[in-house]
Amino acid sequence: MGTMRNKTKGNLIVISGPSGTGKGTVCQGLIKELTNLQLSISATSRKPRGTEQHGVDYYFLTREQFKSMITANQLLEWADVYGNYYGTPQQPVVDAVNRGVDVILEIDVQGALHVKSKYPDGVLIFLIPPSRAELARRLKNRGTDNSGDIEHRLQSAEREIKEIRKYDYLVINDDLGDAVKRICAIIIAERCRPRLFDMELFLQCY
Amino acid sequence: MGTMRNKTKGNLIVISGPSGTGKGTVCQGLIKELTNLQLSISATSRKPRGTEQHGVDYYFLTREQFKSMITANQLLEWADVYGNYYGTPQQPVVDAVNRGVDVILEIDVQGALHVKSKYPDGVLIFLIPPSRAELARRLKNRGTDNSGDIEHRLQSAEREIKEIRKYDYLVINDDLGDAVKRICAIIIAERCRPRLFDMELFLQCY
Repeated sequence: MGTMRNKTKGNLIVISGPSGTGKGTVCQGLIKELTNLQLSISATSRKPRGTEQHGVDYYFLTREQFKSMITANQLLEWADVYGNYYGTPQQPVVDAVNRGVDVILEIDVQGALHVKSKYPDGVLIFLIPPSRAELARRLKNRGTDNSGDIEHRLQSAEREIKEIRKYDYLVINDDLGDAVKRICAIIIAERCRPRLFDMELFLQCY
Repeated sequence: MGTMRNKTKGNLIVISGPSGTGKGTVCQGLIKELTNLQLSISATSRKPRGTEQHGVDYYFLTREQFKSMITANQLLEWADVYGNYYGTPQQPVVDAVNRGVDVILEIDVQGALHVKSKYPDGVLIFLIPPSRAELARRLKNRGTDNSGDIEHRLQSAEREIKEIRKYDYLVINDDLGDAVKRICAIIIAERCRPRLFDMELFLQCY
């Protein structure tokens, strides 16, 4: 559909929801479907694994570097997960959005709400399977968690879905293709927000 | 994409913009593309023309009937256009939205802002050609206005586009197919608003 005339800014799109909802798979689908869109790269203090590359999979930082970013307020959100820091550096997001590119953040519910408080124009999408039974089935099929972990994740999900009303959009991931289509529609719709246009320039055309 | 589980309400979608922007053509395109969508039928005090039918093209009312609807606050918006009343009856819109159907209103800028004040959840879309020159060309090609009328409509457009910031979305009608696709995306996105879901029912699934 081309670029809309006089549109100058991009959006920060946050795809969030309990673990096991299919956030990662959906994000890969979005990147295939749409142009002018990039995935945000998280920073972490944990060590690289396997073929992971700095600036591609993560920004790999020392604990001290990470702490100084926290102190300097340079992260949109961060968390300490079992002794490792994870977070979203603000500057690359702001740079992309100012160039007119949409940035996708794939983060948990707590992180999403932090982002909204620091970046109120961020578009929050809650992705979730249709039921607890379906979420349990997906967590089992993933094969990365034992039954205790799965029960713990289901209890977190129960808490997290109570935050849905703070989100801009709710997408039920009953079918992967449909969920990707709905989120593509949300991203295209959000590109039509008047605040993204250079209104002075537009008014000069009239 | 089917109906989303637990989604219970529809949206009021207002397609608006200066005359000559292609509102009518775009609305016909939307009806072809999407299901669960209906065009709102306006009420008017003018006499039926040609094959126009009551309840299909318009609700044809007497001036007295129309005035009593104004007094009873039963119209989402209305205007007196050269001695004839035109307006949007509220009840059919509310009934459709409560049945989960989206309703499209095709009205002018002043009417759209009235609707927003009476129905804040209404979704306002501003449709406009890319420039004054293009708008002038379309008004000429329409062949329904003389050059004085056209100049008058261009001046109205210049005033009306100053209201864009009060709208939820801006769609530049540079290409009809693209404009229809963008508005379809907006309608699909707006169907994912948490307020449209029965959250009690949804929480019971978790």
